[in-house]
Amino acid sequence: MSFEFIERGSVTTPAGFLASGVTAGFKRSGAPDFAMVLSEKPAAFAGVFTSCTFAAAPVRLCRKRVLESEYLKAVMINSGNANACTGEPGMAAAQKSCEIAAKALGISAEEVAVASTGRIGVQMDMSLIEKGVALAVPALSADGGNSASEAIMTTDTVPKAAAVKVDINGKSVCIGAMTKGAGMIDPHLTAPHATMICIITTDAEISKPQLIKLLSPAADASFNRITVDGDMSTNDTVLILANGESGVKIAPESEEEKVFAQALLALMQNLAKRMVLDGEGATKFVEVRVVNARSDADAKLAAEAVGNSLLCKTAWFGNDPNWGRVVAALGYSGAKFSDEKCDVYFGDIPVVKNGGDAGTPEEALLDTVRQREFTITCDFHEGDGEYWVWTSDVSYEYVKINADYHT
Amino acid sequence: MSFEFIERGSVTTPAGFLASGVTAGFKRSGAPDFAMVLSEKPAAFAGVFTSCTFAAAPVRLCRKRVLESEYLKAVMINSGNANACTGEPGMAAAQKSCEIAAKALGISAEEVAVASTGRIGVQMDMSLIEKGVALAVPALSADGGNSASEAIMTTDTVPKAAAVKVDINGKSVCIGAMTKGAGMIDPHLTAPHATMICIITTDAEISKPQLIKLLSPAADASFNRITVDGDMSTNDTVLILANGESGVKIAPESEEEKVFAQALLALMQNLAKRMVLDGEGATKFVEVRVVNARSDADAKLAAEAVGNSLLCKTAWFGNDPNWGRVVAALGYSGAKFSDEKCDVYFGDIPVVKNGGDAGTPEEALLDTVRQREFTITCDFHEGDGEYWVWTSDVSYEYVKINADYHT
Repeated sequence: MSFEFIERGSVTTPAGFLASGVTAGFKRSGAPDFAMVLSEKPAAFAGVFTSCTFAAAPVRLCRKRVLESEYLKAVMINSGNANACTGEPGMAAAQKSCEIAAKALGISAEEVAVASTGRIGVQMDMSLIEKGVALAVPALSADGGNSASEAIMTTDTVPKAAAVKVDINGKSVCIGAMTKGAGMIDPHLTAPHATMICIITTDAEISKPQLIKLLSPAADASFNRITVDGDMSTNDTVLILANGESGVKIAPESEEEKVFAQALLALMQNLAKRMVLDGEGATKFVEVRVVNARSDADAKLAAEAVGNSLLCKTAWFGNDPNWGRVVAALGYSGAKFSDEKCDVYFGDIPVVKNGGDAGTPEEALLDTVRQREFTITCDFHEGDGEYWVWTSDVSYEYVKINADYHT
Repeated sequence: MSFEFIERGSVTTPAGFLASGVTAGFKRSGAPDFAMVLSEKPAAFAGVFTSCTFAAAPVRLCRKRVLESEYLKAVMINSGNANACTGEPGMAAAQKSCEIAAKALGISAEEVAVASTGRIGVQMDMSLIEKGVALAVPALSADGGNSASEAIMTTDTVPKAAAVKVDINGKSVCIGAMTKGAGMIDPHLTAPHATMICIITTDAEISKPQLIKLLSPAADASFNRITVDGDMSTNDTVLILANGESGVKIAPESEEEKVFAQALLALMQNLAKRMVLDGEGATKFVEVRVVNARSDADAKLAAEAVGNSLLCKTAWFGNDPNWGRVVAALGYSGAKFSDEKCDVYFGDIPVVKNGGDAGTPEEALLDTVRQREFTITCDFHEGDGEYWVWTSDVSYEYVKINADYHT
């Protein structure tokens, strides 16, 4: 049993899924801004969501679906209005959106989920939902996955879709996914949640309890590891739908389930990495790895402090191998460790040895920090705790995007 | 009893203090980079310091002084080398620096404290300390306070010094201070520490235990309330020296001590505010105030989340009255509150009512967010917990300063 990525894979790579992306008018630019994914058969599903107190109306609706609906058939996603901090009218709008889509698809509203992204605090213009549904339903097609992945973009510069084919005892199942998110991206891992919108489809035959069991740890080891700006969103949503179209059953606690879980994680990590590479204004992808900490929790505090440090992120943008900012962030992270035992590496090159300068000439480090991707490893020599995060730099373009952002 | 600010006040406004600022050569620019403050009489003293695990050598030395020395006579400050992450050679260099200064001043090394700021991880060039001392000692003068405040600058664009005159039953004492710090500024209040270098002098007759008692709460309500970039430094140091030259005694637990404490807080808040106004690349000063939270701790979590939010800070730079980013930060802060009871004001104008749009037209908010200084108030309607922070925006200039920074 094994898995492999499929070229130009998307949410419609698994059998029995249709998708489309259209322009409803949420974005002033006229770019596609409304997507739909449909499973021809009822699909088992699971979801993880933001842990922000101000969870958006569509997030609240999705949580209700997870609790109350056995199956989903459709997911609609709009980009340009987050429907967050919109109170009861916002909840009514999310519910009404599902009803409009259900009617057009000839299914029930309880089989429809909705995800929204865009400006916070603006009431939904229901005429745009009406228009989106009217255009998206007839456009649904078995090769519409990439079109859908374009329609969910906000400040993303490239659409992000992928699929893997999993070999299960000589038969195959597919898992496809699309994601959006380039800002308001940060891992807060205390509650099951992710940091963006990701819709995952699979034609495997797998139950809702299994999906619930598999999704959280996969999110924790992928989307919850990434940070662009340290700001968690009100709208983070990851949904997985499984329609069984392949006829291949994944039994609970089986070897098949293990391989499926590995493939799912690989797919979600692939997309998580591409989100950081496409982070707002990002020119660098940095893996911050903390090893041999007293505990995983200490390693996590330390890795996240470096990954979110504005001084580190601006230094990386400037190709500055400034390890002082890295150790300062480790030092204020709250992680328990002895500074005198701490080593730091840029790539494979030691920069800090026993808490002080390892003596590597700055010139030797420049080749590393000038790369588009590099790893910073911090070794505490304290225990076997480990954690890593993926982060980006902060550039002029980041400031420009976020100082000028009006949907 | 009352107090008032003194025009062009500085560390040499209190009687019996001399100071100087000279160019030792730490900065490539040739700008002044070495300062000295001398009390003619032995001065009682207290200090609060960074809680970063990688506390710099001069911080460790100052902590030793607080524990072991009854009095201080001199403080030397260099700008351009932090002497942090420099191991045993760094500690030896800090100690040797005190010895060099003590010899030149004819006092003992245990009466000298040292503070350093600049690049992390570089061993001190002791010839520069020798040169700094050789130049600074003969330059010491009773009107050298402002010169000293210029020599401790790093990325600061203006020197920051102030003094207050406190009326104590018809007699007066003075408190003077200078501070530096424009980046690596963040309030982490779990331990007594501050977020920059600040040297405070007073000619009041007040004991070391009193100074220790008064300094921490004053730091908590001033320097620990400010954030520029969310990065705590390895070198944060606040020192207060009291030489008794005024002959006015401040008795423990007296009314006089209360007034002295008020004046000290006003002085430290004055400098803290100016640090934010002079934050790296800052164009805005924003007071984030959380009121009626379940506890002060909840209010603190919420206020600090907004104050450190990169998305809020870039929106402010862009004059964007984007309250969605404010509520998103409140929501992920970890503070316990009900989103449906939350109100937010920009200045006096309601922007969020009961967790949703208060209906104020964006035009009406622009006048507020275009101001150099404004307040954002978040009312949780939960209890009587309160907290506030002072923060700045993040501009292109911030990125430029920190991508290009090499001392």
